[in-house]
Amino acid sequence: MTTVRLDIEYDGSGFRGWAKQPWLRTVQGEVESALTTVLREPVELTVAGRTDTGVHAWGQVASFETTAEVPDNLARRLNGVGPADVTVRSASIVTDGFSARHDATSRSYRYRLLARPAPSPFERGRSLWWPHPLDRGALHACATALTGTHDFTAFTPTQTDHVRFERDVLAASWTDEDDILAFRVTADAFMRNMVRILVGTQLEVGSGRRSVDAFERLLLGAARSEAGDTAPPHGLYLESVSYE
Amino acid sequence: MTTVRLDIEYDGSGFRGWAKQPWLRTVQGEVESALTTVLREPVELTVAGRTDTGVHAWGQVASFETTAEVPDNLARRLNGVGPADVTVRSASIVTDGFSARHDATSRSYRYRLLARPAPSPFERGRSLWWPHPLDRGALHACATALTGTHDFTAFTPTQTDHVRFERDVLAASWTDEDDILAFRVTADAFMRNMVRILVGTQLEVGSGRRSVDAFERLLLGAARSEAGDTAPPHGLYLESVSYE
Repeated sequence: MTTVRLDIEYDGSGFRGWAKQPWLRTVQGEVESALTTVLREPVELTVAGRTDTGVHAWGQVASFETTAEVPDNLARRLNGVGPADVTVRSASIVTDGFSARHDATSRSYRYRLLARPAPSPFERGRSLWWPHPLDRGALHACATALTGTHDFTAFTPTQTDHVRFERDVLAASWTDEDDILAFRVTADAFMRNMVRILVGTQLEVGSGRRSVDAFERLLLGAARSEAGDTAPPHGLYLESVSYE
Repeated sequence: MTTVRLDIEYDGSGFRGWAKQPWLRTVQGEVESALTTVLREPVELTVAGRTDTGVHAWGQVASFETTAEVPDNLARRLNGVGPADVTVRSASIVTDGFSARHDATSRSYRYRLLARPAPSPFERGRSLWWPHPLDRGALHACATALTGTHDFTAFTPTQTDHVRFERDVLAASWTDEDDILAFRVTADAFMRNMVRILVGTQLEVGSGRRSVDAFERLLLGAARSEAGDTAPPHGLYLESVSYE
């Protein structure tokens, strides 16, 4: 038995998210299908961070076990048979028992806003166009408040499979680069929609429709209805996953 | 009579270049059509840098004269009626007689290569994927050799409307940023395909298939057949145009 780690990049626009679903085009479905073609054996992937419909990834990590012989140039061969909107950046044989999901110690996401008056042809489907003013100081204050361990019940749908709502936010920041205003957040783990609701709520703070204090109070286990809208998926990227 | 300057950004993938042609989708055709809709008057654009099929622009500049009343929010209205792969970044009323073409003192182009083993879903149609090694020192030496006034006959098709083949290259450089290796060049003016042939030829030097000395000799008015291939259009961007 060989355990393999794949580092995967994808443009989420054409996928119904990561997780395999019958009849729907998903990242897991496409990569498993390419693996089956190359290894001539069915493969089931374990993933570090499930992403929803339309969400992108630069640094997704998945793992699988196989009894097939794993060729040296596996990444290149997978890219040769797979579609162009998902790329295997690297494939490496790892310690037996490695799990992309259970061994991950943290995940980093980035949410990109195009913060300028005009839209951009190059940012269609790749960032949220935000032509309105935003108070950078208020956004920075939110990011600072986020860091640490909090109860994020307000930042995931009420109907949920999650049983524990505390998460450790290791880092959170807003950065401006050219016309892209980006929110970057690293935590031990994320709940469904968590980054997108964090962004939607902070945009209300940055627009002056909610105070930083009110935002901070949401981190004490407030109800979902107290937080803001879920920002659209096309601005969100799974940036990287860390392991020991 | 009012003279208007438009600053335009476009993803060239869906256009048969800038210049209007009957039955074909071109940037000029789309922008003039949006202008006619908004101003209710036919308009003819003068452009700083004609681009070919598939070539992109971040900072194209065009101008026109009109007797129509020009609304304050012209850029926003044009973006409202025009397609999403071309954006008018700004529209401004300028001095009578301004010509985006004749008043331009220099143009800057950038050619982007994705220099890494794996392709990227986000760079499809936006850069040339180059998974092979490149000698950065040789590329830098080419860029240095390019600066100054040279005879660029070797860097434009033999069948040509150009009558003068000297151009002043004000700046040329290669830069690495993350996985993007970019060639940036500023000159008083460019001939057809000039940047793409410069890139194609420098890639031969960077790959060790041609010496820097041989590259330098091309700048003395060599024949087109002496230079390298024309690099594909999808890596090329008109970056900016300068005026007095």
